[in-house]
Amino acid sequence: MQRIFVIGAGKSSTVLIRYLLDHAAANDWFVTVGDMSAELANQKVAGHPCGEGVTFNVLDDEQRVSSIRQSDLVISLLPANMHGPVAADCVHYGRNFISASYVSPEMSALHEAAVDRGVLLLNECGLDPGIDHMSAMRMIHDAQARGGVIHSFESYAGGLIAPESDNNPWKYKFTWNPRNIVLSGQGVARFYWKDQLKLIPYNKLFQRYDLLEVPGYGTFEGYPNRDSTKYKSLYGLDGTHTLVRGTLRKKGYCDAWNALVALGITDESYEVDLPQGTTWAQFIDNYLPFDPELSLKEKYIRYFQLEQLPEVVEKLEWLGLFSDRKLDRFQGSPARIFQDLLEDKWKLDTGDKDMIVMLHKMEVEMDQKMWEVQMSLAVCGDDEMITAMAKTVGLPLAITAKNVLAGKIQRTGVVIPVTPDIYMPILHELEQDFGISFIHEGKEI
Amino acid sequence: MQRIFVIGAGKSSTVLIRYLLDHAAANDWFVTVGDMSAELANQKVAGHPCGEGVTFNVLDDEQRVSSIRQSDLVISLLPANMHGPVAADCVHYGRNFISASYVSPEMSALHEAAVDRGVLLLNECGLDPGIDHMSAMRMIHDAQARGGVIHSFESYAGGLIAPESDNNPWKYKFTWNPRNIVLSGQGVARFYWKDQLKLIPYNKLFQRYDLLEVPGYGTFEGYPNRDSTKYKSLYGLDGTHTLVRGTLRKKGYCDAWNALVALGITDESYEVDLPQGTTWAQFIDNYLPFDPELSLKEKYIRYFQLEQLPEVVEKLEWLGLFSDRKLDRFQGSPARIFQDLLEDKWKLDTGDKDMIVMLHKMEVEMDQKMWEVQMSLAVCGDDEMITAMAKTVGLPLAITAKNVLAGKIQRTGVVIPVTPDIYMPILHELEQDFGISFIHEGKEI
Repeated sequence: MQRIFVIGAGKSSTVLIRYLLDHAAANDWFVTVGDMSAELANQKVAGHPCGEGVTFNVLDDEQRVSSIRQSDLVISLLPANMHGPVAADCVHYGRNFISASYVSPEMSALHEAAVDRGVLLLNECGLDPGIDHMSAMRMIHDAQARGGVIHSFESYAGGLIAPESDNNPWKYKFTWNPRNIVLSGQGVARFYWKDQLKLIPYNKLFQRYDLLEVPGYGTFEGYPNRDSTKYKSLYGLDGTHTLVRGTLRKKGYCDAWNALVALGITDESYEVDLPQGTTWAQFIDNYLPFDPELSLKEKYIRYFQLEQLPEVVEKLEWLGLFSDRKLDRFQGSPARIFQDLLEDKWKLDTGDKDMIVMLHKMEVEMDQKMWEVQMSLAVCGDDEMITAMAKTVGLPLAITAKNVLAGKIQRTGVVIPVTPDIYMPILHELEQDFGISFIHEGKEI
Repeated sequence: MQRIFVIGAGKSSTVLIRYLLDHAAANDWFVTVGDMSAELANQKVAGHPCGEGVTFNVLDDEQRVSSIRQSDLVISLLPANMHGPVAADCVHYGRNFISASYVSPEMSALHEAAVDRGVLLLNECGLDPGIDHMSAMRMIHDAQARGGVIHSFESYAGGLIAPESDNNPWKYKFTWNPRNIVLSGQGVARFYWKDQLKLIPYNKLFQRYDLLEVPGYGTFEGYPNRDSTKYKSLYGLDGTHTLVRGTLRKKGYCDAWNALVALGITDESYEVDLPQGTTWAQFIDNYLPFDPELSLKEKYIRYFQLEQLPEVVEKLEWLGLFSDRKLDRFQGSPARIFQDLLEDKWKLDTGDKDMIVMLHKMEVEMDQKMWEVQMSLAVCGDDEMITAMAKTVGLPLAITAKNVLAGKIQRTGVVIPVTPDIYMPILHELEQDFGISFIHEGKEI
């Protein structure tokens, strides 16, 4: 019997745990799910004979070591900054480890020890990071194998709302961590465009989106995401002139979000201490110049030059920014106070389904012709438990786990899924068994 | 004999040390100047019989304690974050302490111990903070003493270049810490305007300046400075509707600086790693969208809508932002890289004189009439050693020292100069002996 230890029974674990339990009997697996809440862990295991839920506290050294030693494979769904001690114990006790998180400096530091001990620390195996790497690398390797020279590579992804649940002016609801959405893009975005390094500060970012077509799903806006420059070496694209990774939103989102960024209400760098009972209209007015001649809405429009953008104003008004609604808290960063409002206005209604969209766009020179090739993916949730996010994070992790346990991945050390031995079987199974398949388009340009 | 220990022999110490030495014989003082460089300390003392220069390292506990115990009064010109151990030793050994820095939380924490030991820790006794508090409080106390009700209080100050040395398009040169100028205004500005809290994020700050007239010196731009709201209680202005403290620049500065803030080049929150030999034109282009049809300058103008602002474009061009000049460093934060350029372009030429400008503007209701009252001050440097900054920082410190040593200030604990017993004799001596006097204007409105 092979024992799998899954750490974390939160929202994104549902599909992962279901897959592992569904395949447990045939593969002679036993699946232990550990969470701070044993109740939540047991809910996910649902009495399956090949599984159990246990209370697990990652900071309890004794319990952590004991649980890891009893396992053949550890899958961590902990927040990215909490994998450290788990991965270190895995190296120490010779257990393989999988996560869907970006490789942290702490994780990187374990590489040599992991190689020495013959341990695999396989990270970035979910959706983004995960399926994005796998599908990008398949596309890149495929073009290179045919003798193609890649001139440009752009890759975008977004966690959005399915078309049938898309019923507010923002065309957006929270299907993932609200805080990350509110703070998205802070810092600077870096990418290459026609051999030039491009830097976009936060205050210009939501004006610098591109329009992108996803077959069957219409037009999306893509804005550059943090540091794309490191993907030159990571993706083997050293000769590529343009390289961008970005985030997708539905059309109309970025202009409206830009009007909020410019206002300053997504700032987390300072706190305000407002009078009890402060309303949204009053709070917004704090950011605008004094002018008793104009209504708040007129002032907002004039200050941010929104006269020609009624669809932006409509979105701001729909949020209740000009209303007498009271803030939920009167002390905290503007970003935190604003998040309260968004969590209410952008909450999922009963029956709402989420949607994952991914898009790679490549310009490749082949046979003395230039081609534009595009691969796109859209996955919708089945229901509130089996969300698109839970599927696209959980399934790659689960398939990876199966392949690691079957001895099909012979690597050691800190690894991400950018080589065919890892990504091919995952993408294949996602397509064959789960209908998670990319649409391929190509044309000469 | 009373012994004075001055810590720091840098640029702003010149006038302070000269005053202390000039008054030493008559008052039976001995002045020890301690600096990391004994040479610099001795230069300032210039062989005066009542003084000596010594090597002093504030982090050397033994030396610090010994020097403080041998003194009757310690004047610290250290950077604001380094007063801590000096002030703590002063409390411990019962020595009075004076500085020109803002009261830090570390300093505040010493208040009760200082009161217990009968020690005075008198801070914010230079120019800004210093003369600003003293002159504001005299104006406020004076109005209140006449039964006036203060409706509005605005206070601005700036370290600028004297009119005769004002020969570049920015009308600005570095007369003070360049880093502070490059980063000025980052964070959020808070103030009260007609009973409303106003918050201005950095990216809007340099668009939200007011125009202010200083008699004899023309029109200046004033932008709000950090947190003015705390001055309601500090200045005893609880019923005041408008309360702003701000920074002064000469006319035309803010619009041009705004075009640099918007570009993102004053950002210190991340680092770039650029190819060796990168030019200013290339670096600036990194921040602008790709467009081979336009020159860099045309692109800048279009991106920041500077078509109607040729005087802004002239200032940017004068800095060499569109030129083939190479950067001085290729790695570091944009703000640090930009500071290199400014330190060259905004450096003082031989013979250049600096200028301090200060302005308080008050609306006060008295005898059923509303008055606008303004107090303004402009001080120019005598030469490169006796700068306006050295005078206006050093003289208040020196006069305060004299009054403390003469037993004229009977307070203990952490204190700032907002009470008449402290500020009156200082302002009086500045006016009588040094011609540093405010111009008073008032009219009914």
